[in-house]
This record gives sequence, structure tokens and C-alpha cells, in this order.
Amino acid sequence: VRTGFPEAIYAEGKADPELLKIINNCAKRGRVMVTRLEEKRYLKLKDQLLLNDESLMVEYNPKARILLIKDGEIEKKGKMGIITAGTSDVPVAEEARMVAEEAGCEVLTSYDVGVAGIHRLFSQIRRMLESDVKAIIVVAGMEGALPSVVAGLVDVPVIGVPTSVGYGVGAGGFAALNSMLQSCAPGIAVVNIDNGFGAAVFAATVVKQTIND
Amino acid sequence: VRTGFPEAIYAEGKADPELLKIINNCAKRGRVMVTRLEEKRYLKLKDQLLLNDESLMVEYNPKARILLIKDGEIEKKGKMGIITAGTSDVPVAEEARMVAEEAGCEVLTSYDVGVAGIHRLFSQIRRMLESDVKAIIVVAGMEGALPSVVAGLVDVPVIGVPTSVGYGVGAGGFAALNSMLQSCAPGIAVVNIDNGFGAAVFAATVVKQTIND
Amino acid sequence: VRTGFPEAIYAEGKADPELLKIINNCAKRGRVMVTRLEEKRYLKLKDQLLLNDESLMVEYNPKARILLIKDGEIEKKGKMGIITAGTSDVPVAEEARMVAEEAGCEVLTSYDVGVAGIHRLFSQIRRMLESDVKAIIVVAGMEGALPSVVAGLVDVPVIGVPTSVGYGVGAGGFAALNSMLQSCAPGIAVVNIDNGFGAAVFAATVVKQTIND
Amino acid sequence: VRTGFPEAIYAEGKADPELLKIINNCAKRGRVMVTRLEEKRYLKLKDQLLLNDESLMVEYNPKARILLIKDGEIEKKGKMGIITAGTSDVPVAEEARMVAEEAGCEVLTSYDVGVAGIHRLFSQIRRMLESDVKAIIVVAGMEGALPSVVAGLVDVPVIGVPTSVGYGVGAGGFAALNSMLQSCAPGIAVVNIDNGFGAAVFAATVVKQTIND
Amino acid sequence: VRTGFPEAIYAEGKADPELLKIINNCAKRGRVMVTRLEEKRYLKLKDQLLLNDESLMVEYNPKARILLIKDGEIEKKGKMGIITAGTSDVPVAEEARMVAEEAGCEVLTSYDVGVAGIHRLFSQIRRMLESDVKAIIVVAGMEGALPSVVAGLVDVPVIGVPTSVGYGVGAGGFAALNSMLQSCAPGIAVVNIDNGFGAAVFAATVVKQTIND
Amino acid sequence: VRTGFPEAIYAEGKADPELLKIINNCAKRGRVMVTRLEEKRYLKLKDQLLLNDESLMVEYNPKARILLIKDGEIEKKGKMGIITAGTSDVPVAEEARMVAEEAGCEVLTSYDVGVAGIHRLFSQIRRMLESDVKAIIVVAGMEGALPSVVAGLVDVPVIGVPTSVGYGVGAGGFAALNSMLQSCAPGIAVVNIDNGFGAAVFAATVVKQTIND
Amino acid sequence: VRTGFPEAIYAEGKADPELLKIINNCAKRGRVMVTRLEEKRYLKLKDQLLLNDESLMVEYNPKARILLIKDGEIEKKGKMGIITAGTSDVPVAEEARMVAEEAGCEVLTSYDVGVAGIHRLFSQIRRMLESDVKAIIVVAGMEGALPSVVAGLVDVPVIGVPTSVGYGVGAGGFAALNSMLQSCAPGIAVVNIDNGFGAAVFAATVVKQTIND
Amino acid sequence: VRTGFPEAIYAEGKADPELLKIINNCAKRGRVMVTRLEEKRYLKLKDQLLLNDESLMVEYNPKARILLIKDGEIEKKGKMGIITAGTSDVPVAEEARMVAEEAGCEVLTSYDVGVAGIHRLFSQIRRMLESDVKAIIVVAGMEGALPSVVAGLVDVPVIGVPTSVGYGVGAGGFAALNSMLQSCAPGIAVVNIDNGFGAAVFAATVVKQTIND
Ligand SMILES: Nc1ncnc2c1ncn2[C@@H]1O[C@H](COP(=O)(O)O)[C@@H](O)[C@H]1O
Ligand SMILES: Nc1ncnc2c1ncn2[C@@H]1O[C@H](COP(=O)(O)O)[C@@H](O)[C@H]1O
Ligand SMILES: Nc1ncnc2c1ncn2[C@@H]1O[C@H](COP(=O)(O)O)[C@@H](O)[C@H]1O
Ligand SMILES: Nc1ncnc2c1ncn2[C@@H]1O[C@H](COP(=O)(O)O)[C@@H](O)[C@H]1O
Ligand SMILES: [Mg+2]
Ligand SMILES: [Mg+2]
Ligand SMILES: [Mg+2]
Ligand SMILES: [Mg+2]
Ligand SMILES: [Mg+2]
Ligand SMILES: [Mg+2]
Ligand SMILES: [Mg+2]
Ligand SMILES: [Mg+2]
Repeated sequence: VRTGFPEAIYAEGKADPELLKIINNCAKRGRVMVTRLEEKRYLKLKDQLLLNDESLMVEYNPKARILLIKDGEIEKKGKMGIITAGTSDVPVAEEARMVAEEAGCEVLTSYDVGVAGIHRLFSQIRRMLESDVKAIIVVAGMEGALPSVVAGLVDVPVIGVPTSVGYGVGAGGFAALNSMLQSCAPGIAVVNIDNGFGAAVFAATVVKQTIND
Repeated sequence: VRTGFPEAIYAEGKADPELLKIINNCAKRGRVMVTRLEEKRYLKLKDQLLLNDESLMVEYNPKARILLIKDGEIEKKGKMGIITAGTSDVPVAEEARMVAEEAGCEVLTSYDVGVAGIHRLFSQIRRMLESDVKAIIVVAGMEGALPSVVAGLVDVPVIGVPTSVGYGVGAGGFAALNSMLQSCAPGIAVVNIDNGFGAAVFAATVVKQTIND
Repeated sequence: VRTGFPEAIYAEGKADPELLKIINNCAKRGRVMVTRLEEKRYLKLKDQLLLNDESLMVEYNPKARILLIKDGEIEKKGKMGIITAGTSDVPVAEEARMVAEEAGCEVLTSYDVGVAGIHRLFSQIRRMLESDVKAIIVVAGMEGALPSVVAGLVDVPVIGVPTSVGYGVGAGGFAALNSMLQSCAPGIAVVNIDNGFGAAVFAATVVKQTIND
Repeated sequence: VRTGFPEAIYAEGKADPELLKIINNCAKRGRVMVTRLEEKRYLKLKDQLLLNDESLMVEYNPKARILLIKDGEIEKKGKMGIITAGTSDVPVAEEARMVAEEAGCEVLTSYDVGVAGIHRLFSQIRRMLESDVKAIIVVAGMEGALPSVVAGLVDVPVIGVPTSVGYGVGAGGFAALNSMLQSCAPGIAVVNIDNGFGAAVFAATVVKQTIND
Repeated sequence: VRTGFPEAIYAEGKADPELLKIINNCAKRGRVMVTRLEEKRYLKLKDQLLLNDESLMVEYNPKARILLIKDGEIEKKGKMGIITAGTSDVPVAEEARMVAEEAGCEVLTSYDVGVAGIHRLFSQIRRMLESDVKAIIVVAGMEGALPSVVAGLVDVPVIGVPTSVGYGVGAGGFAALNSMLQSCAPGIAVVNIDNGFGAAVFAATVVKQTIND
Repeated sequence: VRTGFPEAIYAEGKADPELLKIINNCAKRGRVMVTRLEEKRYLKLKDQLLLNDESLMVEYNPKARILLIKDGEIEKKGKMGIITAGTSDVPVAEEARMVAEEAGCEVLTSYDVGVAGIHRLFSQIRRMLESDVKAIIVVAGMEGALPSVVAGLVDVPVIGVPTSVGYGVGAGGFAALNSMLQSCAPGIAVVNIDNGFGAAVFAATVVKQTIND
Repeated sequence: VRTGFPEAIYAEGKADPELLKIINNCAKRGRVMVTRLEEKRYLKLKDQLLLNDESLMVEYNPKARILLIKDGEIEKKGKMGIITAGTSDVPVAEEARMVAEEAGCEVLTSYDVGVAGIHRLFSQIRRMLESDVKAIIVVAGMEGALPSVVAGLVDVPVIGVPTSVGYGVGAGGFAALNSMLQSCAPGIAVVNIDNGFGAAVFAATVVKQTIND
Repeated sequence: VRTGFPEAIYAEGKADPELLKIINNCAKRGRVMVTRLEEKRYLKLKDQLLLNDESLMVEYNPKARILLIKDGEIEKKGKMGIITAGTSDVPVAEEARMVAEEAGCEVLTSYDVGVAGIHRLFSQIRRMLESDVKAIIVVAGMEGALPSVVAGLVDVPVIGVPTSVGYGVGAGGFAALNSMLQSCAPGIAVVNIDNGFGAAVFAATVVKQTIND
């Protein structure tokens, strides 16, 4: 049985009526998470959401661009860390955080450490390791070097998420993606550009292995 | 302290004298693994290997293209699975297997299941889950669909390794890589094309999380 | 004589006055189909359409983005199936359906079966085969794996249509296109990204071979 | 039941001992086709082929690079045409021809008509249509324009096979592939670069639809 | 002395005040042509144009997106032809026509002949050859096959202009560009995608060679 | 009637027996030119060439990689120039020269002027213009800047031929090709990478326009 | 100690509140430069800037898209030159100029010399060399040939900045980038497309080497 | 006057007789450097080198693949550093070193510091800064992160040289090139993949600025 993972709907590329129909259908069966839902679109749609159950609540996180229809808090078991190189990488990291929490993990975050100098990075990683995180998601655009640096410092699995932040040869996130795939530091695996969702589900799968033991 | 990972030397792109010097230097300090060493090259170099210790033994695996200088067997703790779609993906899988074993993991393999029909895949995956593998490496070229299929069937982390098997639009492994990165089935992370080494180190890092608990 | 195929005008990239002139000219000669005509544009133009014949009727399908000027129903001979992986692939599938019907084929559709699990896919394919479809169009974005899966299950020609649904390495539909071209399952041929029109004309050409016999 | 299609082994990328083992294993069960087997390699391996049955015969076609282990002639039902633009496209066409015949189709070929001027093309196509072919495979490299020309002349499905013939921007066959996918003439579907095998299986699937009726 | 070529200003990518300054400066010295000036922008700027000479007149062609400040008609010597495959290629062709006329050439045009069937193409080309054109510009998007067809029919230099018309693999005009560069029919040279300006200057240079003789 | 152009056979990608058959067939009808025939291959094949006529002579140019079977000298009318940037571009230029001469043009060459400084370039161009060349072919690899420089200095049509000379981002000739297509200097058109043949046929077509006048 | 370089904030990809927070935080510590801040956005944000010190002044340069919060003038030591090929390259050059001045360098500019003919270029370069510039930044789009030309004329380090000016094969600036990287003229190094910031910091680093001596 | 730079001949892509002719011609005028001359080729050609002056000496460096014909030692003024990430990057670094020395610079090298851990890197950089290097060349393949790390530690100009070391997405050096161009650490400029020659000439140009002061 596959349990504990968030039921997720990807909002982009679906017309409004269709999206509403799918959300309202899913919400009949319980918790639902809608990803890639821009704030403007959420504000336009929110009055048409049907919560057929008093126990359901709506939560919207504009940075993560996630709408959550929930029936209470998820119990958290096991921890992961999420790090970003810059401020512009935060939306992808927030998407990952919400998905990971919905998957039942506790998340420690540390944003914008790529610019702040290596010392702040060291202290943040130490904090995460001492809290016993079982996986670290590292979100980075531009030249995408941060996951390599982190993987060189820890023995925990590092999941790299390239972001589409950058211009010129960095436009679209391909330079960051290729850097991460080509990394000299072993112990890194990678997900698609901007895919905070996939990184979180993968990392949560790792964390769960350590709990069932 | 970072321990238990294989000391590895990447043979490709190093001239013979340099490679020998590096291997012999490392071998003074203990176990050593040389990757991407073609059989012909191994045969040419093997008489110049210096084992300054009677306890050291040389083992060469032509499929994995790996030379191992070892001082006994590694104790194995925790399990992972390795699956390939086709016969041509086996060298990459064998590289991963040897690296994972050197990292102290027990490995269950199941090669060429992509061609053998879905039923053989089901039974092989069942065998792996019953043996309690904590991660599955899936090696596939061509359209690279197998990791998605496997990830849809298990709750264990799936590490996709695209291979450079294929021609036309598949040449070089980019179609397989992009398929895996773009996969609809969550719970997959990916390493570089043909990078059995990286996949194994990453998977071993995952397996180790479950042992320390 | 080449008969029975829809007279089609491609609306994108033509200025409004030009498009109207072409449509109204064609409509003088009989049935006309205008593809890639967004709803907003249709609403802007519709009052300027000249139907010089009382038997002509206007039909607009906003999902397919097709305007049809018709003089009655087309007689249908022979069947094909159209399947989509996700909800976002439906516009391309609807374009294909309308073109195929205009070409005189009966169409069985089954949308969004990629997400709904393999069982729904099996039952939908069984339904199509029992209805004696002579070709199946499979529309899919992301990693584009569905046509391979379908082709592995049927002996009917499978026409893959990659869609530009996806982000990161999947942006533009190239990952899906390459997956389909590189497919291990034989019995697949492919058309351009988002080209529901071309897939339908091709599939109708196949279906017609079976009727003339 | 999926029947009538050739059991095929792809030789490229398999080591010699492995390839032999797979061929000899398959040959125990009956007919076998080995594709992409260069003549030199065939000559090296042929004495190690094990035919455990007196009824089996070995046939090797150096142009098609195909080895066939057969137990008699295949009964042919239904026809297709195969056309090439140039002389250099012939190996891909011959691969397609042998696969199509093995799949039970009669094949009419017309090679090198792209260079010979439009009149020879016209007469060859007329011959094919009069013989009642149900599908035409068109193999072309360089700018890949021939399938469009053919599709403009016939109402039979046209399967385009781009070849890796060409240099500069045409190297690898991508210019031809993109031309075919982007063709203005509807009624074309495309397979991977140099994929004579896939084109033939697809075309045979089309031809079979017309026979079962 | 380099004479007779239009003084041209490329409007795109220049801010409005800068563009006006450059135009008004040039207009002091005589005739001026402003290319890639969208109609909306022209309407916004036209009242700020300074014509310091009563003999100057303003002419704006919205299809060609060209603004011409002229002091009378150019004397025409020598002819060229301009052909387009589709309706969407007309803006690029019109840009070429205005530039060629400004360079002192008489231009025969024939638009949208790619779709209208080969017979109309034949008669249009005959008309051009009988008028003694010394060069033919062929503008085409999609798979870009028209220049090859034309070059196969005439002994006059053919200049191919790929257009960015198309979608999927044809987006941006690269499929058309590569087709033209890779053409089997000799006697073709190519300019940048959508570069009607460059094609016209080049063709006019050819035409002028024949006049000076 | 299309006359005066060389009957040419492209040797690459044709097997030896086929090539010989085609050459010997063509030679029965008269003059023949075989391009892209490496010296080693020529030496292997030359004794099998059948000249069924005493008037025929064989000429082989190893730099141009061209074999010419000729029946006397071609009468030359009209002139063109051919310039190369470096020494490595000479084979492509020599291919162009032989083709142009076979097409009945007189050719002035000036090789390796890109490196030798701007003064030598100026004097070479002056010599060509004084000889009344009607077109100039400029062959260049690396960053491909030479055709732009030449086009800025002359009013004669400039045909750019990018070469595959270069490494890193210049490998394969794409940087040179794109530079030439993107050139700011109008009066340039371009042919495929390394396509000396196509450049010469095009330039000869230009030269012929000036003769018929 | 790393001193004298501008503290810079990259505005693109940061949400307004975040950007303001970061600017206001930095401004507490002293001088601050905000790059890639479009004029519209500056006008929207400027009233929310907090200058907690009377000595601070706000300066906005719309061409450079830079906001500078400064406490007086920077003392300038050492010189560099900045050249652009066209008018459209000026924004990137202005970004470089402001950054270089903020880094303490005197800057000589010469814009739009690529179009104005080689003589103006010569005289501008002479002026720069006579002023004893220690580095020259050359900004160019399209085919990106100007840095090569400049590097051939001077013995000072030339830093090439490709711009995203151009269309067709030049779109995005890649043709210019590759030309510069592939340049035959030694003495050139390159930064990312449109990266005036990086070019200025690098050039200032060069200039500073000459001052400390 | 441009002085002090090595007269260099690029051997690749020149036929043997041509190369010899060019070398021997140059050697008449004085010192000469031949780059990209593989050892085998050097051994084949060396007896045909003509040194028409007793003061000339031949020096061949197989790692750098450089042949130097020299007339004594060059006087060295000013220093630069050269660092490589791995062993496979050494040939490119050695090419750079020989060129820089020929240009009159003293060179401090530190190879393979990317693998050896951050501490060795720190101490090597300290050594270089204390020796007062005026520029540092950093050679790196794979993910190309080393130049960014170095640039973060020093105020000296850093010239990044990507190498074609790597496989999968790193093949050809493009991942490394894009990483370097996209670097967050300012103070980096980049040359073409594997272009040790260009990096050295550029760095020497920088060093010379500091000497003339
Ligand atoms: N932000 C996201 N990025 C990638 N995949 C997602 C995202 N959100 C949802 N998904 C996946 O897409 C599936 C839903 O797709 P759909 O049915 O189109 O809403 C879910 O089962 C998830 O696996
Ligand atoms: N949606 C579509 N996708 C691809 N091709 C189309 C489409 N609609 C029409 N066409 C083709 O484009 C031709 C019409 O092009 P046009 O003359 O530009 O309207 C038709 O004959 C069709 O073959
Ligand atoms: N226009 C620019 N182009 C490239 N890099 C920049 C630019 N402006 C600032 N930066 C760099 O980006 C860093 C700031 O990034 P952030 O913290 O995201 O504002 C600065 O330290 C600079 O090194
Ligand atoms: N290894 C190299 N990489 C890049 N450019 C080089 C190299 N060696 C020589 N060059 C340049 O190429 C020019 C010589 O080219 P060539 O005349 O073809 O030998 C020299 O002037 C150098 O500027
Ligand atoms: Mg690690
Ligand atoms: Mg799973
Ligand atoms: Mg099938
Ligand atoms: Mg047709
Ligand atoms: Mg012609
Ligand atoms: Mg000119
Ligand atoms: Mg210079
Ligand atoms: Mg620095």
C-alpha cells in the first residue's frame, strides 16, 4: 500500500473550470494539495472551492504557490533539510517544504546561504546534522555549484534542484542542471529544473526508509 | 568523519604512467578502486601494479570495467536493488554493483527486465521488496521509461541512471535523461548519463541512513 | 482523386483581415475548418463571417480551438481511438477528434488515463479494440511514455502526439517527442509536437485503407 | 495474441559472447532476426551459431545488416512500398524491406528516385498505387523533403524515415527529421533517424489492418 | 564608391527617443528607411518625425513594417522575383520587396504559391523567367522545402529566406533554415531567419552585376 | 535547358562497388566529377575506372578531393574570386575552385589572407575587383568573421562558406555558420558548412547572369 | 581583505517586498547598488526606500537600469575603456560603466562605433590608448565580431560582452558569445551574455593590479 | 608595436607537408611555437625541421603538445598562477604555461588541487598571492566550479578555462563552460574550451599592464 503521500494537482495548463472540477472532486475524498497555483489565480478561484465537510480548512501559501485543503495537522516523523543558494530560489524551496510536511516530514530550512559566505553555510549544515536530518534538498540556480559543496561536507543524501534563475547561458536553468549532474562530489542526485515537488517526494521517501526500520 | 566509501580513481583521460603512479600511491594507503578501465588497458598495465603488502589482492571485472585492489571482504549492512532495462545497460549496472558492495551494501540485481515483459518485472520487484531493499537503482537507455514504471510500483527511493544506448534522437543518452527528469511518477531522482558510480554512492548513502538508526 | 479530407485553414500567424478573407473565400466552395483559432479571436471575428448559403452552419469548439463551417453531418465509416495521458493534453486530442470526424471517421476517446492508473488504461483499450478501431492516437506530454505502453498492448498502429506540456527539460515538448521516437515498443510513428491535426489526417488515412478493401 | 511479427535482436552495443548466447537461445524457439549486424562481425560469429534443427537456414543480407535464421518462407499478404531519395539511404530501406517481409508483407521497392527527377518518381508511385500498396515508407536524408512530396501525391499513409546521411547542419539526420515532422503535407508520420526496423513494423501493422477486414 | 543601397535603420531594440534622434539625423542627409517598425509604434512616433525639406515624403507599409522617408521615386534597373510558400511568410517578403525597390530593382512577386499546388508555381516561375529576372528570393517557413523546388526548375540564383513560422520542432524557423542549407538542389544560398532585408540587398547586388556589364 | 553545370557524384556514404558502377555509368554519357573522394580511396579505385572513349582523361586533385573525368578543357566565361581565412580552409576552397571551373568560370584565388593582416586582404580584393569578378566566395572557420569584412569592402555578391575548422564552441563549424548568417554587413548569403560545391554552383549561377546579358 | 568593489543587489527575480527589505538592510551598512531594476519598477519602489542617514543620496540611471545609494563620490584611480558595436548594446555598456566607476575606475566610453565605419573605431581606440586605459570592454551583439577587431589593434586586455541583440540564429546572444570565444585574435576573454556587471568587475580587477604596483 | 608575444602555429587540421613548410618558413625569421602537435606527429616530422641557424634549438613538450624552436631563454617579468582541478586538465594547463613563459611571464603552477581538498587549495593560493601573481588561470572540466571558488578567495583577475573532460551532459566541456560564464563570483572571465593558448596570451596581457606602469 502506498500511503502518506500528498494527493497533488498540478494547476498550470488546466483551464479554470476544469481545475475547479478536479479540486472539488478530490476534496470529497479528503486532503488535497494544488501546486503551481499563482496568487492571482487563487484569489479568482477561491470562492468557488466547495468544502463539503466542516472539518476541511483552506490554506494558501503564495510563495510556494500551493493551495492546501486539509482536515487537521499531519503527524511528523523524521527530518530533512532544505537549503537555497539565493533569494530567488525560495519559491521552489517553499514548494518543497510544504510537500515534504504534507508527506509527514519535519523540515529545517536555511535560505540564501550561497551569497552569505561559507561560514554561515557551515553553521547551518552543522545545525541540520545535529538535528539528525536524513536528507538535504539543495536548491540553486546560476552555476548550480551549491549542491556539490554541500555534498562534500555531509554523508547524508543530497538532492539537487536546479532553478530557472539566471540569464544568458544560464537562462532556463540548464547550466545549473548540467553542473549538478556533472558534479565531482558523489552523493548527489538531481530532479527536473524548478521541481520542488519531486525533490520533496523523493526526499520524503528517503526519510521514510529510516523510520520503518 | 566520512567513512566506508570507496577510494576511487577515474581512469579515462589519464595517461598510462600517470594512472599507474596514482594507483600505486593510493594502494600504499589501502583499498583502491579504479573505474572506467577498459580490459585491454588493464591487461597492459597489470604487471606494473605495485602491491607493497601481501594482504592486498587484485580483482578485475571486465563488464564493470573496474579494477579493485583489496585487503579482504567488506562487511555488508543494508540492501539495495539494481535493475536494467536491456542487456546493453549491464556494464553501467555492474559498475554500480561493485561500487555499492565496496561501500558496504548488499546488492540484489535483476538485468534485462525491460524486454522480458511486465510480469517478470513485477516478480523481480516483489523479490527485492521482500528482501527489504532500501533503494533501487534503475538503469535504462533508449526512451528511459523504466524508472517511472518502477517508481509507480514501490515506495522505496528510485535512482534513475540514463545510459548512452540508442541512436538517432537517442544518441548519447539525452532522450533517456530528459524522460527520467520529466517523469510523472514522483519518487525518482537522477544522475548523469552512464554514471553507475554516482548512482551507487548516492544509493549507499540512502541505505546507510537506515542502518545508523 | 484525393477526397474526403477536411479543407483546413491554419489561423495562427495570419492577420485578422487576411484570415477573414481566406475563410470567406473558402466558404464559397463549401465546408471549411479553421484550426488554432483561440476563443477570444473567434468571438471577435464571428460576426464578419459570410455564409453565402443557407445550408451552411457555424460550429465552434473552444477546447479544440476549431471553427467549422459545415453543410450537414459527415457520414462516418471506420473507427479510431484517441487517448490522452493527462488533462492538459485534451486540447490537442480534441483538435484531432474534430479533424478525424471531418475526415469521415468515428472516434472513441479516453482522456486522462495516464494518471488514473494502469487498470483504467487496460479497460479503455479493451473497449477500443472490441469496437474494432483501426488506429489509436496517443497524446502525451511530460516524459511521453504512454504511446509506448499502449503500443505494447495492441497490434493496431499507434500514432504518438507529443504535447508541449511540461517545464524544465520538458518545456516545449521535446522530451516527449524524443521519448516517442526512441521508443522500444515497435508499432509507433510520431507527428510534430501539439500536431493533433496531422495525427488525425494520418490516422484517417490508415482507417480509409481498411474500408476500401 | 500478438503474432506474425519478427522476433528481433538488436546487435549493436552487445558484446560478442552475449550476442551469441541470446541468438542461440532464441533460435531454439524458432525464427530469429538479428539487426544492425555489420558484415565483418557476422563473418566472425557465423561459425558459432547453433542451429539445433535441420529445418533452420541462415540468411545474411550485408546491405540490410540483417541475419535471418529461418525455417522456410513466410506467406505474404498485403503490400507496401519502400522508396529512397538517394543511394546512401538504401541500407535503411533494405533493413525495412527484410523486416516487412518477415512480418508477412509483400514489398515493392524503388530506390534513388529523389535524384532521378520528378518523372521517374511519378511513374514509380503510379506502379505502387496500381499494385494496391496500403502504406509507403519513404527514406530520405539531407533536407528530407521527399516524404512531403510523396504524401502530396497519394492517399495512402506515408511513413517518413530520416537518415543520418548529410554533413554540416545535416549531420546526424536532424535536419531531415525536423523537416518531416514539420511537413506541410498531411498524411505523414515519422520514426527515429535510421530506424528502418520501426518503420517496417509500423507499416506492416497498417497493412494488417486491411487484411483482417 | 558604394552607391544605390538604402540607408536603413533597424528599429527593434532601440528606445523611442533614441530611434527618433537617429531617424531625424539621417533624414537630414536624405532618403531613409526604417525597418522592423511595428504599426502601433509608427503611429506613436510619426508626429515627431522632422522632415527638414519639403521634397521629403513619408510612406509607411504596415505589412513590411517599413517606414520610408523619400524624396521621389527611385529609378529601377534590372528585375528580381520574390515568392512565398504561405500567407504567413508575406511580411518578410514585403520587407524584401521594399528594400529591393529602394535599391533600384524592379520586383515581381508571387505570394502563397506553396499551398496552391505545383501548377500555379510553374506558371508563376515561367512568368518571372520570361520577364528576365536575374535572381529569385524564396521565402518559406515550416519545413522550408520551396527554395529547393524552385532551384530545381531555374538557372537563376535562388536566395532562400527561412521564416519563423511554425510550431513544435519548427518553432523559430530552425527546421526551415537547416532544410535550405542542406538542400540537394544546388544554386541556393541562404540568409538568416526572417531576414527579408538581407535577402533583398544580396539579390540586388546580384542584379546590379548584370547591369554594369 | 539547364546546361553548363558539372555532372557531380558525391562519394561519401556510398559503398565502393556502387560508387564505381555509378561513375562508370555516368562516364559513358560524358564528363563526370566525383566529389569528397579521399586520396586513399581514389588510389584504391582508380584501376577499376572504365573510360570507354579515348578522348576521356582522368584528373585527380587530392586537396579538393575531386576526381574529374574530362574530354578536354572547358571554355571559361566570366570571373569569380575565392578567398580563405586560413590554411585549413583550403580544401573547401579548392573544391569550390574546381567546380566553378567545370561550370565554365575563371577563378582568382587568394588563400590564408585572414591571418596575414588586413593589408594583404585589401590588395587581394583590389586585384579581384580590377579583374572584374562578379562574385566572391569567402571560406572561413573559427569565428567566421572574414565574409563580413569582405562584404563591407565590395559591392559584389559575397557567398560565405563556414568550415568545420575549430574546437570547443567552434567544433563542427556552427559558430562560423551563425556568425555569417547574423552578419551586420549586408550583401552576404551563406551555404552549408564545408559546402564548397554548393557555393561554387551558386556563384557560377550569378556569374552566368552577367554573361547572357 | 577584498575592498573597493560595489555591494550589488540583483533585482530581477526578487519580489518587491523582499527586494525593498534587502535594499534597506544593505543601505544601513553604507553604499548600495541595485542592478537590473527597470525604470517602471524603480518609480514604484522609490518612495519606500529608507535612507537612515542624511549623507546618503539616491541616483537612478534608467539606461543602465541601476539604482545607486551613495554617500559621496568614489575616488577614481586607473582607467578602462568601454566600446559598443551598436546603439542597442548601450544599456549593457552603461551597466558596466556605472559598476566600474563604483569600483573606483575612470571610464572612457565610445558607443556605436561598429556601424560608423573602421575610421571612427581607429580614432576612438587611439584616444583610449593615449589616455592609458589598462583594459577595454567591448560590448557587441549580432555576429559579435568587434572584440576580435579591437583585440587585433591593441595590446591591452579585451573583455568581450556578447549581448542578446539579434534575431533568428542570433536570438539570445549565442552567436555573438560563440564568435567571441572562438576568436582568432588572442588577448580576449569573455563574460556571460548581457553581463555588463561581471565585465566591469573583472576589468576593474585588472586595472587595480596596475595601481598597486 | 605588438611585441613579446609568441609567434604560434596551430598544427591541427594542416596536412604534414604544409605544416612543415609553414614552420620552416617561420623559423627563418626567428623563434617559433607550434601548438596542438601530438607526440607521434612530432616524432614523424622532427627530422624534416630545418634550423638554418646554429643558435636555434628545438624543444618538445609532449604534455603541452608544443614544439618550440628557440634561440635562447626569454627574460621573464611579472608573474601569473595556473591551477587545475584534476589530472586530466594538465595538458591544457601545460599548454598555457609554455605560452605564458614564451610571452615573458614567470608561472607558478598548482595542479590537481580540486580533488585534494579545500586546504591544499587554500595554501596554494596563499603561495601564489604571496609571490605577487597578477592573474590566475584556473583550468577545470566536469562541473567547472573551481574558478568560482578561486575568484571568491582572491582579488586578482581569474581566467577560467573549461576543458572537454567529462561524459554524459559534461561531454565536450559545455557544462563547465556554462558554469564558468554563469558564475556568481565576480572577477572571472572565460576563454574557449581547452584553449590554454588563449588563456595564457590574455593573462600575459594583464601581467604586462602591471609592468609598464
Ligand atoms: N509542482 C509539481 N511539479 C511536478 N509534478 C507535480 C507537481 N504537482 C503535482 N505533480 C504531479 O502531477 C500529478 C497530478 O497531475 P494532474 O493530474 O495533471 O494534476 C500528481 O500526481 C503529482 O505526481
Ligand atoms: N492545426 C494544424 N496543424 C498543422 N497543420 C495544419 C493545421 N491546420 C491546417 N494545417 C495545414 O495547413 C494547411 C493550411 O495552411 P494555410 O494555407 O496557412 O492555412 C492545410 O492544408 C493543412 O494541411
Ligand atoms: N547585473 C548583474 N549581473 C550579474 N551578476 C550580478 C548583477 N548584479 C549583481 N550581481 C551579483 O549578484 C550578487 C547579488 O545577488 P543577490 O543576493 O541575489 O542580489 C552580487 O554579489 C553580485 O555578485
Ligand atoms: N592552441 C591554440 N588555440 C587557439 N589559437 C591558437 C592556438 N595556437 C595558435 N593559435 C592562434 O592561431 C594563429 C595561427 O593560426 P595558423 O596560421 O592557422 O597556424 C596564431 O596567430 C594564434 O593566434
Ligand atoms: Mg556527501
Ligand atoms: Mg514510488
Ligand atoms: Mg503494438
Ligand atoms: Mg497524402
Ligand atoms: Mg537552379
Ligand atoms: Mg558589400
Ligand atoms: Mg590584442
Ligand atoms: Mg575575486
